[in-house]
Amino acid sequence: MSGRLYGLGVGPGDPELLTLKALRILQRCGLIAFPTLEDGASFARAIVAAHVLPTQRELPIRLPMTTERAPAQAVYDLAAEEIAAALAAGTDVAVLCEGDPFFYGSFMYLFGRLAERHPVEVVPGVSSLTACAAATGFPLAARNDVLTVLPAPLDDDRLRRGLAGCDAAAIIKLGRHLPRIRRLLAEEGLLEQACYVERASLPNERRVPLAALEDAPAPYFSMILLHRRGSAWR
Amino acid sequence: MSGRLYGLGVGPGDPELLTLKALRILQRCGLIAFPTLEDGASFARAIVAAHVLPTQRELPIRLPMTTERAPAQAVYDLAAEEIAAALAAGTDVAVLCEGDPFFYGSFMYLFGRLAERHPVEVVPGVSSLTACAAATGFPLAARNDVLTVLPAPLDDDRLRRGLAGCDAAAIIKLGRHLPRIRRLLAEEGLLEQACYVERASLPNERRVPLAALEDAPAPYFSMILLHRRGSAWR
Repeated sequence: MSGRLYGLGVGPGDPELLTLKALRILQRCGLIAFPTLEDGASFARAIVAAHVLPTQRELPIRLPMTTERAPAQAVYDLAAEEIAAALAAGTDVAVLCEGDPFFYGSFMYLFGRLAERHPVEVVPGVSSLTACAAATGFPLAARNDVLTVLPAPLDDDRLRRGLAGCDAAAIIKLGRHLPRIRRLLAEEGLLEQACYVERASLPNERRVPLAALEDAPAPYFSMILLHRRGSAWR
Repeated sequence: MSGRLYGLGVGPGDPELLTLKALRILQRCGLIAFPTLEDGASFARAIVAAHVLPTQRELPIRLPMTTERAPAQAVYDLAAEEIAAALAAGTDVAVLCEGDPFFYGSFMYLFGRLAERHPVEVVPGVSSLTACAAATGFPLAARNDVLTVLPAPLDDDRLRRGLAGCDAAAIIKLGRHLPRIRRLLAEEGLLEQACYVERASLPNERRVPLAALEDAPAPYFSMILLHRRGSAWR
């Protein structure tokens, strides 16, 4: 009988934001897979480090540092083969996912390769979206607000349209796009309503009104939240 | 010294989707407050029932069954007074919030009344959004998708604009609006891309392609998720 594949949401970074369910399932899987940088560091693995048992087999998935699709797809092909072999042998497999597996997560690449042939269960996790909202200290969306999540790599026109149609927005995947996003929000008259959050829920969490932020690229774990209601972020 | 007010996200319904942090803080608060229906039933309290200690004081906040604002605001005024008294006496207070406190949560009403005078911490929780995505068995958003959350009480024009501008959408607060939303999605050619989810993460969770759903009002805990990519929900 096939093992079961779990997409485990391990939350935004604070190890205490793991759910009881993710913890229970993590500890009963024979194989634990997780994405790593090329140097072997894994944020998802670090979040659950205290709970991994020495008897559990681990499968680091080393993603190449490139924005091209082909090299990463080859890595996922190989990882999916290894996971499929474990599942076929009756082993349950946990794939560790930062935040939530189905909210802009890389789990979809393994899911797409394995879900047709194996039983899959997704355990939802605390997403970076709500962790960043908690960090700002202000409600993200309420009542009949329209809330839109906008990836920063989109072009200016697409971002402008998204901003025009919403009451609240989260701009994700900032990286090198941060200076452009900031200029665009200023042009749209939204700079004073925007808050920048970095490493939400971690000890080095940082929250700055966007208007007061230095003009530099952002780290991967960062987000801008804004609300047309006003500048209660300060 | 003032006690601390915690907005505790207790997740979408499955008691196991509580985080380790929410559990720890829950058990060290002297007072636990939570919304209830007029008959005294509380979904948030039920989620954490196994963890409440007999020594903890409880404050049910009985919300009137009406869409008018004034009666509920009076109830929140009273609850805030009682919570403020406990905080002033040095007691830590946990307010139980279904899902996440800052994601369309009613915690904002207490937060608005108390945050200026008392230390407040929000503990993010697993939101209904990602719990519903897990229930559909399909990624909600990926790569550079624009994701929009649309409350169903909005008028047709506003909903149409929101749908036109996104790749993926979550339509929340369905209730009596469900038949209208369904008609609108059909007119927009999005019916086949939409999935209806009810009571995500609970034992009676239900997931139906929207096109196959009976035409009736929806319970409070329901949501429609859709993605323009297609009908992989089936």
